Amino acid sequence: MHVGIIGGTGPAGRGVALRLAQAGARVTIGSRDAERAASVVGEVQARWPGLDLPLDGADNAGAAAAELVVVATPWDSAVATVRALREPLAGKVVVSMANALVKEGREMLALVPPRGSVAAALQAALPDSLVAAAFHHLPASEMENLESGLEADVLVCSDHPAATAATVALVERLRGLRPLDAGSLNQAAAIEAFTAVCITLNIRHKAHSTLRMAGI
Amino acid sequence: MHVGIIGGTGPAGRGVALRLAQAGARVTIGSRDAERAASVVGEVQARWPGLDLPLDGADNAGAAAAELVVVATPWDSAVATVRALREPLAGKVVVSMANALVKEGREMLALVPPRGSVAAALQAALPDSLVAAAFHHLPASEMENLESGLEADVLVCSDHPAATAATVALVERLRGLRPLDAGSLNQAAAIEAFTAVCITLNIRHKAHSTLRMAGI
Repeated sequence: MHVGIIGGTGPAGRGVALRLAQAGARVTIGSRDAERAASVVGEVQARWPGLDLPLDGADNAGAAAAELVVVATPWDSAVATVRALREPLAGKVVVSMANALVKEGREMLALVPPRGSVAAALQAALPDSLVAAAFHHLPASEMENLESGLEADVLVCSDHPAATAATVALVERLRGLRPLDAGSLNQAAAIEAFTAVCITLNIRHKAHSTLRMAGI
Repeated sequence: MHVGIIGGTGPAGRGVALRLAQAGARVTIGSRDAERAASVVGEVQARWPGLDLPLDGADNAGAAAAELVVVATPWDSAVATVRALREPLAGKVVVSMANALVKEGREMLALVPPRGSVAAALQAALPDSLVAAAFHHLPASEMENLESGLEADVLVCSDHPAATAATVALVERLRGLRPLDAGSLNQAAAIEAFTAVCITLNIRHKAHSTLRMAGI
């Protein structure tokens, strides 16, 4: 399994890359700047020297060449970034994890993108790809710390059953994470927006909270 | 403590009324039709005959006369209902629990009200009241069953610290529920919309799920 992380040098992308590599997937961290990606890969590998993590760095086109691709850029550059990669991403499962958020005082607010969600905007920009949304509510610092004892549910939604299935299978490989099929890509609007509530709770309660759906 | 539930005869309102009465609060279930409210009170009391629940039924003006008022009407009649009660609700904490949702196939979708949330629309219609939003993600059938062993977090948000404090204190009285301050009324948009995700998960997974924020 080879996974590419477009825009993978930020905390969110690094956390997913680390956890996937820990689970044995080959992971390419992509960046606008391939040297920056290589440097981040070096830092992650140096933090976990005993693990021999199968990570490498590349430009975003290099990440887009993988079998399955995660988009972890800031939300406001996600569409422009993937539009240039429409051809290499055609036919592939593309997992959107960005949230359109803005800080205001002691809270994070959810913005409403023109298509309702970042994931829906990516699907519109990549009509030949199978877009799923996932990984929204995870605290990045816990994802980057393999000793954190993280236990969280990951809500997955897509208009393509094959993309939901592939994303659920990907999440199932990751220790401490439980994937839940949350329906069509229409749900991404509410799933992404709820990230603002999770972060606001963390600010107010000085916590690294994780979402759990009890009773499923 | 006297709590009124405007539009309290539906499953959501009945569940909150029952749990509050179980906790010892005097509760007036309101309805457009006072006879309907009295009949629902009779049904609830008959289901739990040993409890001597301090419930009564009234029209919505009767419910609005309570110390603290919960609005549990369907979302599309909430604003019209409270607008007629602006005077009796002035100066009071008003808790909004409605969600703007629509069913589409095997999922529930969140609609975006003109003010972003039902709660924000209520605050705009009731400028002299202190509106909070709460009780959105609770499965009504579990709320109405005192033997369900319900354990859930209740996200509370408001622009008025006094309304947040009063609503948090109200939720703390209810067995199995943990209130969490989730910030300003701006958060109600994402909190209400996320109810669509919770219900969709329940449909897909044949469950009565509850929201838990681990790590707080």
